[in-house]
Amino acid sequence: MRVDGRANDQLRPVTITRNYIKHAEGSCLIEIGDTKVICTATIEDRVPPFMRNGGKGWITAEYSMLPRATATRNPRESSKGKVGGRTMEIQRLIGRALRSVVHLEAMGERTIWLDCDVIQADGGTRTASITGAYVAMVDAMHKLVENGVWKQIPLHDFLAATSVGVVGEHTVLDLNYKEDSTATVDMNVVMTGTGKFVELQGTGEDAPFSPEQLHEMLALAKTGIETLIDNQKQALSHVMLPFEANDQNKEETLVGEKNV
Amino acid sequence: MRVDGRANDQLRPVTITRNYIKHAEGSCLIEIGDTKVICTATIEDRVPPFMRNGGKGWITAEYSMLPRATATRNPRESSKGKVGGRTMEIQRLIGRALRSVVHLEAMGERTIWLDCDVIQADGGTRTASITGAYVAMVDAMHKLVENGVWKQIPLHDFLAATSVGVVGEHTVLDLNYKEDSTATVDMNVVMTGTGKFVELQGTGEDAPFSPEQLHEMLALAKTGIETLIDNQKQALSHVMLPFEANDQNKEETLVGEKNV
Amino acid sequence: MRVDGRANDQLRPVTITRNYIKHAEGSCLIEIGDTKVICTATIEDRVPPFMRNGGKGWITAEYSMLPRATATRNPRESSKGKVGGRTMEIQRLIGRALRSVVHLEAMGERTIWLDCDVIQADGGTRTASITGAYVAMVDAMHKLVENGVWKQIPLHDFLAATSVGVVGEHTVLDLNYKEDSTATVDMNVVMTGTGKFVELQGTGEDAPFSPEQLHEMLALAKTGIETLIDNQKQALSHVMLPFEANDQNKEETLVGEKNV
Amino acid sequence: MRVDGRANDQLRPVTITRNYIKHAEGSCLIEIGDTKVICTATIEDRVPPFMRNGGKGWITAEYSMLPRATATRNPRESSKGKVGGRTMEIQRLIGRALRSVVHLEAMGERTIWLDCDVIQADGGTRTASITGAYVAMVDAMHKLVENGVWKQIPLHDFLAATSVGVVGEHTVLDLNYKEDSTATVDMNVVMTGTGKFVELQGTGEDAPFSPEQLHEMLALAKTGIETLIDNQKQALSHVMLPFEANDQNKEETLVGEKNV
Amino acid sequence: MRVDGRANDQLRPVTITRNYIKHAEGSCLIEIGDTKVICTATIEDRVPPFMRNGGKGWITAEYSMLPRATATRNPRESSKGKVGGRTMEIQRLIGRALRSVVHLEAMGERTIWLDCDVIQADGGTRTASITGAYVAMVDAMHKLVENGVWKQIPLHDFLAATSVGVVGEHTVLDLNYKEDSTATVDMNVVMTGTGKFVELQGTGEDAPFSPEQLHEMLALAKTGIETLIDNQKQALSHVMLPFEANDQNKEETLVGEKNV
Amino acid sequence: MRVDGRANDQLRPVTITRNYIKHAEGSCLIEIGDTKVICTATIEDRVPPFMRNGGKGWITAEYSMLPRATATRNPRESSKGKVGGRTMEIQRLIGRALRSVVHLEAMGERTIWLDCDVIQADGGTRTASITGAYVAMVDAMHKLVENGVWKQIPLHDFLAATSVGVVGEHTVLDLNYKEDSTATVDMNVVMTGTGKFVELQGTGEDAPFSPEQLHEMLALAKTGIETLIDNQKQALSHVMLPFEANDQNKEETLVGEKNV
Repeated sequence: MRVDGRANDQLRPVTITRNYIKHAEGSCLIEIGDTKVICTATIEDRVPPFMRNGGKGWITAEYSMLPRATATRNPRESSKGKVGGRTMEIQRLIGRALRSVVHLEAMGERTIWLDCDVIQADGGTRTASITGAYVAMVDAMHKLVENGVWKQIPLHDFLAATSVGVVGEHTVLDLNYKEDSTATVDMNVVMTGTGKFVELQGTGEDAPFSPEQLHEMLALAKTGIETLIDNQKQALSHVMLPFEANDQNKEETLVGEKNV
Repeated sequence: MRVDGRANDQLRPVTITRNYIKHAEGSCLIEIGDTKVICTATIEDRVPPFMRNGGKGWITAEYSMLPRATATRNPRESSKGKVGGRTMEIQRLIGRALRSVVHLEAMGERTIWLDCDVIQADGGTRTASITGAYVAMVDAMHKLVENGVWKQIPLHDFLAATSVGVVGEHTVLDLNYKEDSTATVDMNVVMTGTGKFVELQGTGEDAPFSPEQLHEMLALAKTGIETLIDNQKQALSHVMLPFEANDQNKEETLVGEKNV
Repeated sequence: MRVDGRANDQLRPVTITRNYIKHAEGSCLIEIGDTKVICTATIEDRVPPFMRNGGKGWITAEYSMLPRATATRNPRESSKGKVGGRTMEIQRLIGRALRSVVHLEAMGERTIWLDCDVIQADGGTRTASITGAYVAMVDAMHKLVENGVWKQIPLHDFLAATSVGVVGEHTVLDLNYKEDSTATVDMNVVMTGTGKFVELQGTGEDAPFSPEQLHEMLALAKTGIETLIDNQKQALSHVMLPFEANDQNKEETLVGEKNV
Repeated sequence: MRVDGRANDQLRPVTITRNYIKHAEGSCLIEIGDTKVICTATIEDRVPPFMRNGGKGWITAEYSMLPRATATRNPRESSKGKVGGRTMEIQRLIGRALRSVVHLEAMGERTIWLDCDVIQADGGTRTASITGAYVAMVDAMHKLVENGVWKQIPLHDFLAATSVGVVGEHTVLDLNYKEDSTATVDMNVVMTGTGKFVELQGTGEDAPFSPEQLHEMLALAKTGIETLIDNQKQALSHVMLPFEANDQNKEETLVGEKNV
Repeated sequence: MRVDGRANDQLRPVTITRNYIKHAEGSCLIEIGDTKVICTATIEDRVPPFMRNGGKGWITAEYSMLPRATATRNPRESSKGKVGGRTMEIQRLIGRALRSVVHLEAMGERTIWLDCDVIQADGGTRTASITGAYVAMVDAMHKLVENGVWKQIPLHDFLAATSVGVVGEHTVLDLNYKEDSTATVDMNVVMTGTGKFVELQGTGEDAPFSPEQLHEMLALAKTGIETLIDNQKQALSHVMLPFEANDQNKEETLVGEKNV
Repeated sequence: MRVDGRANDQLRPVTITRNYIKHAEGSCLIEIGDTKVICTATIEDRVPPFMRNGGKGWITAEYSMLPRATATRNPRESSKGKVGGRTMEIQRLIGRALRSVVHLEAMGERTIWLDCDVIQADGGTRTASITGAYVAMVDAMHKLVENGVWKQIPLHDFLAATSVGVVGEHTVLDLNYKEDSTATVDMNVVMTGTGKFVELQGTGEDAPFSPEQLHEMLALAKTGIETLIDNQKQALSHVMLPFEANDQNKEETLVGEKNV
């Protein structure tokens, strides 16, 4: 049994609270167990220099932890005067993952900034950030549709992420911090709602892993991500995503809501 | 009447939620109207180089805003590679203010780090930070007393802060962001529970102010700070502060609590 | 009696030497006791990005100390690669203070840079900087009037600054370094020629101060600033400031000078 | 057929030139097609602060490109004053990958620095760096064995890396720059001599990939890495690695060499 | 006799390998004894801000050493976050030296970047960089002539550099690292093909030098530079430089080459 | 005739004011024409890390200009966050030059910091800095002798510096800013009191120079430096330098002074 009593294929409790920060175009607090991340989405009416005059949009992410999100205090990167390697790696991952489901060419020359700030960390902060940022991004996009700027939300799939790994003899889903510290293999998986891989990042620094172990981990990840996407769907029940068009039930609900 | 309907001498609603971040030795979320700040206190068993071998403790603060705490997104100071002047000014103020009520010589060579992270801003973030950091600091100090490291909490007074200013013709208490933007005079006041000044920072950039206006503003600040200290007392009702020793009622409550 | 034999309400000797640096549009060396600051004013024909196309001017200040202005050598901020918190706080104060007496909207899109470089420090460097920078600024503005760019100097008042504090039992004016190190309360006051407050920054880190002590300190500051403004008037006797228009004596002197 | 005429499962020509830099304890130039990387290994008799007094060793890597390694000139990271996200990600990967096959606890408190400097880039620079760094590291370790510091080389497996991806309709091995620019999926794989995974980093930014595509890519990677390890074995034929002990042929050759 | 057996007026063996890096407009590997420098020339179709709209071109250089070019590992300047004083001094020297033989006004608003990366160091890296950068620069210029952008190469002389010094009692040419470490006087000399000085940088930090010693050193430098320029001429035999126009032999060779 | 009416071999007026900054162990203001530099010497009782436990002392210099020392304002290097190439080159030169006349091994593990701050610039700031820093350094050393720390001043020669150059057709001494801007050749020369060269830095960026021109410039430099050293001798008439021991007249004066 796992340190917190979960089954190997069991996620921690997931809560997504939308509109958590009043100023942002989209925002949520995502809680996965004791990991808590504030995700905000900001729309900017221009793209970075390397994209100018290309007619396309851009999605970019920044990630940070409050100094006391962790068991011991981490000095701020602003005080150190530079962003560390781990932070850069994570924010590049978040941005890349989210771009994979966006029709950038349908955005016009706009940037959506996704800020993921971990206020409390207990393992899986980067995957929680991706899952939460998706929700904040949809809300910001929805606002542009409501304002008549876009006809529909420029997305072609759902997207969520989780971690899997090998702890002791077992292959487990959604590692908390204690498990992560003793895991010999650690893998982050980002998948779409249609079950395709967007990112796979597996590391066997303490012990290389076999093709069989890889297979088991990917199966666990699939289950976990399906559940996370269910959570996203509930949080976003007020929005009709273009690729859900033939989802009969949802459409009715939305129509019903407007009639009220 | 003020933009949000308050009287000139009225504070916004204040909420202090203790133990907001599980890893920190002390923490709270302080909400003053729509201004929300996470304050954490971290105990470190050493002092900065310039204090070494002096036998005294140190209190230091860091302040930051999430990029989307404000109406438009602010680039992170970590991305810019340096901490800006405003941030430095505020974190120096917070540290100085809190040190003024601490018996540093009774702390031993320990540092308490106070991290004040604004997650949503609507004016008065620096004064809310001071008021909230005081609560987080007491909780961290209380832990050292409970662990038998200290005999009593090394504090000699309460401490809270608020802003006052001149908006149009009126002298007002606790300015929100809209008021702050149109104020001609802006003053931050930090006071102790015994009604003495610890910091006074008044700026009449848009219009210098007369001694009479100063007098009125200080009177408003006094009222506001008394209310804020009442809030702190409620939040800290589980702790006996040494300078409250002859507060009969409290002592009884605490004794009663322990008996249960 | 004070360490240098002064009365509690006595300023140190003040000397202002105009045209100290030949290249600058305005410059002076201000000496207040052993504190010596070179102040230069530079006119730039544009404003910072956040002011562009607003039709207004801007006043900004930079402050620095030579490494050996102090009893022990301070490493240069250029070598450390960043400007420290104290420096930022001071230069923001200087800029803000001077802007308070300038008609920015009458400047056109021009910036005046005020550089205050402390070559020898003995307490009160920031207030000496403000007092000296005012003189350098007037000389630079005067040059634009002489060149026909402006009709008159866009100022509406005099401006000077001094420090007051509590040393031992006494409230004293214009603290030198030794006094400053032992003061329990330290307050910087910036006032206009008409006796209004522009900035009040009082700190009781070592001992909070009572309303009565505040009152005494403000009275001392008023006296000191009046004397400093007299010094400025003498240094600037060649210039007619617009708000001195009904100062009969001065006008005559100036007319007289021109006739010669 | 591929842009350079290779079969989908064909590596580019591989050359490893040992002792390329005379000062380093170990060094090689690795050329994979037109990608050329100088790898050096430096032994330092201490470990980074976070490892001190742990009795273990450390392996760390730095990666850089000459400004004109690429078709257009890239500004130096030293001139920009900071190391970019891509560089950090790569050097963290190289270090982590090499540590996975080292017995750190058998190294004593020593660090081996692996510097991978790309002098000419044509795709696959990070995987070439890992493959080359392994060779430089073995040579440096061998020197410590020859000097009697260590009894045997503290390694437990071979290690090499290559890239695979989806270009158009095809799954291909060892992408050159042109292929990399048009690939929809890009995956870097690091494997040991015994066929286990050390790192898997797959990205489908332009198009998510299916489990079947993953399967095909991993099969290609396995073939490629086997060939690269054969190249390493040839380059290192003068060294007996502890896990090759029962490789009869090699032992004889080495004995023979010493007899001559 | 010198540590490596050379006569006092003898250069180390010189090799210049053109087209060393395939992407650059001009490039070479210059080897002078064990000192090895990769020089690349990059043409950019604009000039730095301070040169804009002046109708002239610009030549600029950057210099760096791989961390393990030297006997002990040097931390990267990118990791340290700033370019050191020695590097800046050297790259300013290289740029200045090369500009001295270029008709900047004939270049149009173009910049040539010369990157000199030392892959192995054994003394004389800055002078080898100048000598090699000249060759890379000519090749890049030649490309613009071949493409019809320029009518002829905008150069008016050859240029090479070497070091001379006082080691023990002797004045010697082209110091290697060992000699350099024990030299009391160290001088770098940059000369043109017509025997004029472009740069003289002599330092007698360990012992000042007399006018006689200066005279001897300059004579040695002249001989060395003549040999280096012969090497450049051989490497550049495929190019006709405008100031060689009346060099009968060369012209014939070139014509002959084209006939083949 | 030169722009300011001087003869080609004529220095500008030289003034050296000792004890210019009261806190420093040694200090002077050196004025050479309109070039004005504050030089201070600071004694520190330790050496930089690379010198530790070597039993020797160290001399190091820092150089800076006030922003408005020049005709147009230069941004501060502290604001830019880094020290520029020109500054580094100059401060390395100053340190190296002064070390050349110091018996470092007689200093003990002490550092003397020489800070040269240009308050007004009109050409020749680096050579004025060297000439002035020598005086400040002697005063600081003298203090250690007076305090009984050293038996005698650890110097073996005088040291001063000047610039020479080719302006139009003429070889001239001590170029002011206007001359410097139009010079085709610019050379800085540092010489000892016994007429030996410590540093020679000649640059013919705009036109290479012949051996004859070099000869003429060196002769002018010699004359100028002799005059500068005479100025130093007058400024330092209160100090007996060990290498002046057989200077009969001076010894008498000093004895005489003490008798009074």
